[in-house]
Amino acid sequence: MSTSPPAGNPDPLQDLRNALRQFAAERDWDQFHSPKNLAIALTVEAAELLEHFQWLSDSEPAAIPSEKRARVREELADVLLYLIRLADKLDIDLLVAATEKMSINAVKYPIHKARGSSKKYTEF
Amino acid sequence: MSTSPPAGNPDPLQDLRNALRQFAAERDWDQFHSPKNLAIALTVEAAELLEHFQWLSDSEPAAIPSEKRARVREELADVLLYLIRLADKLDIDLLVAATEKMSINAVKYPIHKARGSSKKYTEF
Amino acid sequence: MSTSPPAGNPDPLQDLRNALRQFAAERDWDQFHSPKNLAIALTVEAAELLEHFQWLSDSEPAAIPSEKRARVREELADVLLYLIRLADKLDIDLLVAATEKMSINAVKYPIHKARGSSKKYTEF
Amino acid sequence: MSTSPPAGNPDPLQDLRNALRQFAAERDWDQFHSPKNLAIALTVEAAELLEHFQWLSDSEPAAIPSEKRARVREELADVLLYLIRLADKLDIDLLVAATEKMSINAVKYPIHKARGSSKKYTEF
Repeated sequence: MSTSPPAGNPDPLQDLRNALRQFAAERDWDQFHSPKNLAIALTVEAAELLEHFQWLSDSEPAAIPSEKRARVREELADVLLYLIRLADKLDIDLLVAATEKMSINAVKYPIHKARGSSKKYTEF
Repeated sequence: MSTSPPAGNPDPLQDLRNALRQFAAERDWDQFHSPKNLAIALTVEAAELLEHFQWLSDSEPAAIPSEKRARVREELADVLLYLIRLADKLDIDLLVAATEKMSINAVKYPIHKARGSSKKYTEF
Repeated sequence: MSTSPPAGNPDPLQDLRNALRQFAAERDWDQFHSPKNLAIALTVEAAELLEHFQWLSDSEPAAIPSEKRARVREELADVLLYLIRLADKLDIDLLVAATEKMSINAVKYPIHKARGSSKKYTEF
Repeated sequence: MSTSPPAGNPDPLQDLRNALRQFAAERDWDQFHSPKNLAIALTVEAAELLEHFQWLSDSEPAAIPSEKRARVREELADVLLYLIRLADKLDIDLLVAATEKMSINAVKYPIHKARGSSKKYTEF
């Protein structure tokens, strides 16, 4: 199995990256978009997303209330957009990095050790 | 401009989503992957990423030290992987959500108001 | 140097504040301790604390495993120390602010509305 | 060894702890206040605090705009309140833990090594 984009197959994350570049350039925002500031923004957005789930119990249905669904969807989008922008500033290819990380995880979490366990690999 | 994946153009995020599904199924991890737990994991990974930038001053070169680069790349990948997994559990299409959010942002931050400003749209 | 609250000094947070001031001064760290950087550090420490709980289910005993207890205790301490330091830099009296916030919360969450509910006050 | 305030020297954090216990009991909120949920709430509040600083540059005055000051003060208070509540649920004495952590930090960051450096102790 290969999850890398095959040659000649446009990468939708690069489309978003390009759109974000243009969006920032038109607003003269590159001055604010240091990696540090983008990492802050990413964390803040992730925490805003988390806020929607914070008091849910495990026994409650996984689904979020429909009136919150649009908000949650926007927060997910915000996280992705800041992530793409940060990766762009750091010159990191997100898809390649994620694919490689999955291979690393497969080594860290072999099936026979990780099955049914939520332990961190350092605790096996 | 369209950033939506055209028909017949495979979406690499869906490839990662499918790989993550299989990874979790093989390890019997769906029991841990409630949206709440995945949102926690996403926030924790975002904060770990942020940690690498926390004491950098604005005047320091944006680039992270090369010895930290591999770690930062892995944290970026972790954020993307948890984000994809969470979106999957919530049945949200990340690319469509992100593309729509960019349209929303274009309305919230019109160029003539947002140019050169880091204010939130609610403060214009 | 003793950081224990001396008898007769009513506010132990001010003792810690003073000890932190001295700690930073001796190491020439005020240059790094902008409110922004301290707020980042606070968030990073909070997320490190959260990490210890992230995969626990509600049905698991609330208590953390004893081998993790010392780590959790240190993370709690880190959050308090950064919080005191940040409040100091902003010239905010934490105890007064917290006491006032409890009064605000009592108004936002009147018993007859809030009883048994985890809703945010904006959702009543 | 006891670093607790001697009898007769009131500990204001214990006053807040007691007030929070009563506040939760009156609203039947203990069912929501698992350590996990409180650690989430703490992280979410820390990130809300961070949001106020996210686009500030180092060269901007450290002070936050006066119109934001009341909000920032409330967020600081929220962090302290959740921290006290979490420590209570874990049966950890925050003041003792923080005082001990300062001693640990003094060993990790000896003046001659740490002076003028923002490196983590693991990087010395």
